[in-house]
Amino acid sequence: MSRIAESTIRRLSHYYRVLEEVSAEGKRMISSNTLAEREGITSAQVRKDLSYFGSFGRRGLGYSVEHLRTEIRGILGLDRRWRVALVGAGRIGAALMAYRGFADQGFDVVAVYDRDPSVVGRKLGELTVRDFATFATEGPYEMAVIATPVRAAQEVADALVAAGVRGILNFAPRKLKVPDTVALRTVDMTVEFESLSFALSQPTLPRRRRTRG
Amino acid sequence: MSRIAESTIRRLSHYYRVLEEVSAEGKRMISSNTLAEREGITSAQVRKDLSYFGSFGRRGLGYSVEHLRTEIRGILGLDRRWRVALVGAGRIGAALMAYRGFADQGFDVVAVYDRDPSVVGRKLGELTVRDFATFATEGPYEMAVIATPVRAAQEVADALVAAGVRGILNFAPRKLKVPDTVALRTVDMTVEFESLSFALSQPTLPRRRRTRG
Repeated sequence: MSRIAESTIRRLSHYYRVLEEVSAEGKRMISSNTLAEREGITSAQVRKDLSYFGSFGRRGLGYSVEHLRTEIRGILGLDRRWRVALVGAGRIGAALMAYRGFADQGFDVVAVYDRDPSVVGRKLGELTVRDFATFATEGPYEMAVIATPVRAAQEVADALVAAGVRGILNFAPRKLKVPDTVALRTVDMTVEFESLSFALSQPTLPRRRRTRG
Repeated sequence: MSRIAESTIRRLSHYYRVLEEVSAEGKRMISSNTLAEREGITSAQVRKDLSYFGSFGRRGLGYSVEHLRTEIRGILGLDRRWRVALVGAGRIGAALMAYRGFADQGFDVVAVYDRDPSVVGRKLGELTVRDFATFATEGPYEMAVIATPVRAAQEVADALVAAGVRGILNFAPRKLKVPDTVALRTVDMTVEFESLSFALSQPTLPRRRRTRG
């Protein structure tokens, strides 16, 4: 279990979402074919992904929805709650606080920080914005979300790492450097939009993920 | 210019962000080294990326910030405005409407749709939620954002394609199938969070993008 591809973990997240859905529909069993269809992959890939973590299914019967859901929840670390700090109380930060879906998955945003004195002390959702200068003396937080302007992002990441944060979700549109001991993921909605506008600006629409030929 | 790698386009988006920043700081020239540092890549990669689109820089002098910014803006299709429809007025949709950053880049969310009769007719930001059943007779919209529950996403995507939408940004956590003539990008914040919780749940923290070995 020590060397799982990132793509496998992402598919597990997707399987988990499907299992939540079919569970809500009252279904008790699910086939690898059904899981595969949703992802546009082969059922062999589904079985291979799940085989890393144990033997869940029964030939010809498929997987028990509740059992597989519980197992994946544990594998993904969703059977516990995570203390998350949000850094950056600007527009992205405000939108993230408005979106309450993360708490459903166990990610609790328990504090919001900013460096701007005009923002510190204000309310963002139900939280009062704290001064990022005090970050290292507060917490501890297991994860942090960077929603700062791009120019501040690396400096903030360095401070988070120094304060012992082990997982960072970065919304600033630049690559950040962190030690190998820290997990970093990036969400860049603007880049996705700009990738679309590039594609739509071409005389003939390029295929997705095309490579130079 | 017909075959540009998706990764090149993403770097152009990042260069553009850096250029906006240094322009705001009043700088007039920028070196490929400075652009490279921000991305953690080589200056040769920067020069190669930019060379697909023309000859912008001057040896030893670097690039004119304003000129390069204008060029990249045109390449990425940011020198015009895009009419975007948001489908799904739930939590993600509400958060996206709360985030006003897209308009700054030329992406105008001009309409919001939902299928839920209890939501249709309500206000979301400054827009009134419309019934998705009427989507095809309204618009036209160049891009659409899918912020529906996962089970509705493929059906909505099919309807968007049928109505002539050429670019789709999908926030639903599943893979969608669209024709090659439609550009599709996906943002899945939950998967990113779950990838972090998986990483932090491991006895020894895995490196990013590790592969089976």
